[in-house]
Amino acid sequence: MKKIRAAIVGYGNIGKYVLEALEVAPDFEVAGVIRRDPTNVPAELKDIPVVDSITKLEDVDVAILATPTRQVEHYAKEILALGINTVDSFDIHGSIADLRISLDSVAKAHNAVSVISAGWDPGSDSVVRALLEAMVPKGITYTNFGPGMSMGHTVAVKAIEGVKAALSMTIPLGTGVHRRMVYIEVADGYDFKQVAAAIKADDYFAHDETHVIQVESVDALKDMGHGVNLVRKGVSGKTQNQLVEFDMKINNPALTAQILVSVARASLKQQPGAYTMIELPIIDMLYGERDALIRRLV
Amino acid sequence: MKKIRAAIVGYGNIGKYVLEALEVAPDFEVAGVIRRDPTNVPAELKDIPVVDSITKLEDVDVAILATPTRQVEHYAKEILALGINTVDSFDIHGSIADLRISLDSVAKAHNAVSVISAGWDPGSDSVVRALLEAMVPKGITYTNFGPGMSMGHTVAVKAIEGVKAALSMTIPLGTGVHRRMVYIEVADGYDFKQVAAAIKADDYFAHDETHVIQVESVDALKDMGHGVNLVRKGVSGKTQNQLVEFDMKINNPALTAQILVSVARASLKQQPGAYTMIELPIIDMLYGERDALIRRLV
Repeated sequence: MKKIRAAIVGYGNIGKYVLEALEVAPDFEVAGVIRRDPTNVPAELKDIPVVDSITKLEDVDVAILATPTRQVEHYAKEILALGINTVDSFDIHGSIADLRISLDSVAKAHNAVSVISAGWDPGSDSVVRALLEAMVPKGITYTNFGPGMSMGHTVAVKAIEGVKAALSMTIPLGTGVHRRMVYIEVADGYDFKQVAAAIKADDYFAHDETHVIQVESVDALKDMGHGVNLVRKGVSGKTQNQLVEFDMKINNPALTAQILVSVARASLKQQPGAYTMIELPIIDMLYGERDALIRRLV
Repeated sequence: MKKIRAAIVGYGNIGKYVLEALEVAPDFEVAGVIRRDPTNVPAELKDIPVVDSITKLEDVDVAILATPTRQVEHYAKEILALGINTVDSFDIHGSIADLRISLDSVAKAHNAVSVISAGWDPGSDSVVRALLEAMVPKGITYTNFGPGMSMGHTVAVKAIEGVKAALSMTIPLGTGVHRRMVYIEVADGYDFKQVAAAIKADDYFAHDETHVIQVESVDALKDMGHGVNLVRKGVSGKTQNQLVEFDMKINNPALTAQILVSVARASLKQQPGAYTMIELPIIDMLYGERDALIRRLV
């Protein structure tokens, strides 16, 4: 069997987990890793080509973008123009549909496939939200995040003057309402109470119940576990009170990376264009022969 | 907007709920109902064509099979041969893959689409099982059914001599192990203890913890609610202990009917052939414009 040759673009937290997921996937091989500094080669990359441009790698079927979300569009367009599939976990919810339209034309022009926003939210949660609407068309879905570290909120706290180190935890209170537990180290010469007030006044936190707590070491609190509780109550046909719930407790970057690898597989089975996960048949994400998967899973 | 014209084949418990789901779906209209006895017209069918053959209905886009599961293949082949799409909730797990192969060639020969085994299990549970494997490729998934009435087990109890009326409830004990609570009315002249022993010895019950309880009225216990708890613990990439869980408490025939209607919609967006739900993009099951669905759900 010819293996799928995948390149990893960016080698931060997600990129490292993508490498692990590729290494255990029976149908993939790692074509190489793209880094700004290709001389920076940690031990686990010793036997893998590390380059500063995907054009220096051979026979790449799909590029897995593990870059910051705001660089996704740039890299995806560049790589799709080479006729290479891309997958990403672009996570700015309000811009996903526009990114899809933008990448769709590039992908089609170069006979390639792009799967965007493939992580857990957006991503597998989106698939669950769509499935729940197919089952229960009328009603309300609440996506409750946490407990877990919010990257976006943590970055927002770090940007506030007087914050030396920070960690923002998301605590679900139900019905899509969240509490923010913000742990900070205060920089020398700053007053905790003033810094805390500035955090609570920030637009990222002003609308949620927010608690700011001073700690000796933020690093000692870090845990990449995360949770989701997604719940829908509604109506199937004319029948009320249909209750469906989806829950998970997972390692955040490990799940994102695994889903990127699964959709990289699916990308090879689609017609040219750009797709979100709710537009893909789930079976295409799985390793194995179609008939055998149907016998085992349906 | 031209509406999708759907015919309902069979008008038992599921067929009645299918009618309700069609009536509230904004993009469907009911082409008619096919019954063995078309003179049997309950009040809610007064304004709907009731016929004994789908050939007597005009412009049917899709036939929703609400027949007993063992008649699905026969009806599906007959209707696909007319170039009309079919959807069904065929639920004999061991025969699904073969039914798909059998209907696939008929569908392709007549430029039609068949979506098979579209209910909640097989059906939406299958989609969740597949999604969970895309997220967490290594591990074990347990599907725990109930509490709820099992149609198959109830029929098996009714077939035992001395049983006047029966209801078999499935109680989940976790890790895919189930308790059977069997409620029976005993026929005149039979001994409860002997009948109970015969039930427990039956192959449907011999392998599960089974309790048989004599009641005055089985009918007084009937409730079409059902539950599922589907749980997977496993490995994403090389990261252990990823926990994902799906839970629902639903009206059984209402959910089956709603899913049949949602996949009937999806059937019109597929290439000719036969499909299980894990082979369909979820977005195709939903009413609405693609870009708007992506903006709302992803």
